[in-house]
Amino acid sequence: MSKQILCLPGDGIGPEIMTEALKVLEAAKQRFGLDIEVSHGLVGGAAIDKDGVPLSDETLAVAKRSDAILFGAVGGPKWDSQPMANRPEKGLLKLRSELDLFANLRPAILFPQLAEASSLKPELVAGLDILIVRELTGGIYFGEPRGVRTLENGEREGFNTYVYRESEVRRIAKVAFEAAQKRGGRLCSVDKSNVLEVTALWRDVVIEESGSYSDVELSHMYVDNAAMQLVRAPKQFDVMVTGNMFGDILSDCAAMLTGSIGMLPSASLNEKNQGMYEPVHGSAPDIAGENKANPLAQILSLAMLLRYSLGEGDTADAIEKAVSDVLDKGYRTGDIASEGCQLMGTVEMGDAVVGCL
Amino acid sequence: MSKQILCLPGDGIGPEIMTEALKVLEAAKQRFGLDIEVSHGLVGGAAIDKDGVPLSDETLAVAKRSDAILFGAVGGPKWDSQPMANRPEKGLLKLRSELDLFANLRPAILFPQLAEASSLKPELVAGLDILIVRELTGGIYFGEPRGVRTLENGEREGFNTYVYRESEVRRIAKVAFEAAQKRGGRLCSVDKSNVLEVTALWRDVVIEESGSYSDVELSHMYVDNAAMQLVRAPKQFDVMVTGNMFGDILSDCAAMLTGSIGMLPSASLNEKNQGMYEPVHGSAPDIAGENKANPLAQILSLAMLLRYSLGEGDTADAIEKAVSDVLDKGYRTGDIASEGCQLMGTVEMGDAVVGCL
Ligand SMILES: CC(C)[C@H](C(=O)O)[C@@H](O)C(=O)O
Ligand SMILES: CC(C)[C@H](C(=O)O)[C@@H](O)C(=O)O
Repeated sequence: MSKQILCLPGDGIGPEIMTEALKVLEAAKQRFGLDIEVSHGLVGGAAIDKDGVPLSDETLAVAKRSDAILFGAVGGPKWDSQPMANRPEKGLLKLRSELDLFANLRPAILFPQLAEASSLKPELVAGLDILIVRELTGGIYFGEPRGVRTLENGEREGFNTYVYRESEVRRIAKVAFEAAQKRGGRLCSVDKSNVLEVTALWRDVVIEESGSYSDVELSHMYVDNAAMQLVRAPKQFDVMVTGNMFGDILSDCAAMLTGSIGMLPSASLNEKNQGMYEPVHGSAPDIAGENKANPLAQILSLAMLLRYSLGEGDTADAIEKAVSDVLDKGYRTGDIASEGCQLMGTVEMGDAVVGCL
Repeated sequence: MSKQILCLPGDGIGPEIMTEALKVLEAAKQRFGLDIEVSHGLVGGAAIDKDGVPLSDETLAVAKRSDAILFGAVGGPKWDSQPMANRPEKGLLKLRSELDLFANLRPAILFPQLAEASSLKPELVAGLDILIVRELTGGIYFGEPRGVRTLENGEREGFNTYVYRESEVRRIAKVAFEAAQKRGGRLCSVDKSNVLEVTALWRDVVIEESGSYSDVELSHMYVDNAAMQLVRAPKQFDVMVTGNMFGDILSDCAAMLTGSIGMLPSASLNEKNQGMYEPVHGSAPDIAGENKANPLAQILSLAMLLRYSLGEGDTADAIEKAVSDVLDKGYRTGDIASEGCQLMGTVEMGDAVVGCL
């Protein structure tokens, strides 16, 4: 039976970079004789414009039936005035939550060819390879109650709830410990347990779980300190695990340390290894439609998808090798350009990867 | 009538660096003939050890009567097993809340003498001068309900509440707009308004307030993007304003960009300009008692105290000049040491500042 991939390009630069990833997939299918069926759907602002909602029930149903989802990016100023419940981002959040994609793996890797792109001094980031494991379906981004109410004195008050139960912490901790076992054997759990009860429970549960992973060295860090340590000495970290909101902030910070956020893919997995794969970067509406976006994060997201959800490790390797080859050739999009490189657009970069495949 | 300062050294390196700041205050009093009375109190772990609580009612009463508080730092592994309600940090949080010190001003400044200390490339940070205005008495660090409960299935669940009312946002926005007017005229408000209702209200209120500050250029940024932009191009910012938790994370990140967090003071003010002044760095229990800590942030906190709460701008200028002079002489504590510098301990550094005064 053929494997099913759902493509959700979304907004901004999403459709452009998705086109390039699909070209790469087409080439890979031919070269490796893969049996993959691709379907297409709308999400985010694009879905609001067509269906009135950021994720239609039909698209969600297709997503649930698929083996994996390749996701672009959502959001943009056009939809900023949408009510909270109908923002483009809700399409993404709904997919995460309905498919129970609780484990978000966000690598922050410095590509040796792009060492110059980092804003940090080279010696601090050379060889950087951090994996941030972010809990993705709980915490304050999903917690209830939430909203804006009017107080007796007529003032408005906004409120959200930061909540985690034991089992939610336990399952993401397991993913993180297992990832650490396969990597450098070190795990740093990030919380604010000196102030927030919910994260004190987080720490307790992570410590309980650590009993089953005696080969992993566990440490704990407050989130404010973690933000500092990432900037000061990022190579001290191997795997980091944290909740949804802290993970959002820290993974973006870590990704930016590499100087090439346009290069970084991510995976969001559930217990069945069904997964959604997306670039770490956003929809970049300011450069949408200008053939400027870097398609490599989307292409590397495709490689992750093939490896983790479709079991096609060889094809994934080949795609990653092709990306490395185009970098070796000096091909660069604007975001990673440096002196002496060959600057190219989104389409040309996609073609170059296909050429190297 | 003489002015009243309460000194709360706290834990870890707090007492050591406070001793140096008090030496500097003594010297300044003599040179400038200031009429200042200093009282002393315990806070944090030191107060737990003596009084059983991280801030006694007596100390709080003295704090309320004082014109200003010079604060060291609190916390350490010794008190990590304290119940949440009795942690060292609660002493600090209680002072902030009981004195209504809602406006936390955290400058992130790169001292030209220490340009090398930054982990960022020099051209990205040379001349860095950001002011982060953090709301300090609301948001999720104070929100109710909070705690850990047991669910029907026997699982524990932790929860905290992220809450802001209009008036809380309005008053911190005013402080930030006014600071921007006195500086570069640009204000960036940080939120996660695409996901969190409480921060969508934050953004709305900041926009409403901006009507009264037409000379300030207001922008908005999501917190994940703000963490990235701080790492990528920190000099794009003038003043940033945000809530308690985001401010905690971002101000530490910004401070670390300078490479010299041991140099950075902060002020926490209420509507009456009563203030508490403390270093941005923490209690650093790992180096406590070793005469290694950098006392300059504490000394610069004293300078801020004299300027903002006591109206002694000239004395503040003189102290800041003395700090700059010791840096010019090449004197450094370990945290800011570089090749060719003259390495010294906490006490010697304090003496050097007194010498320059
Ligand atoms: C678009 C937004 C809802 C999303 C998030 O905050 O989770 C994004 O920032 C991310 O990190 O994937
Ligand atoms: C010690 C802790 C409670 C405090 C905070 O998080 O506010 C500290 O990190 C700070 O930033 O002043």
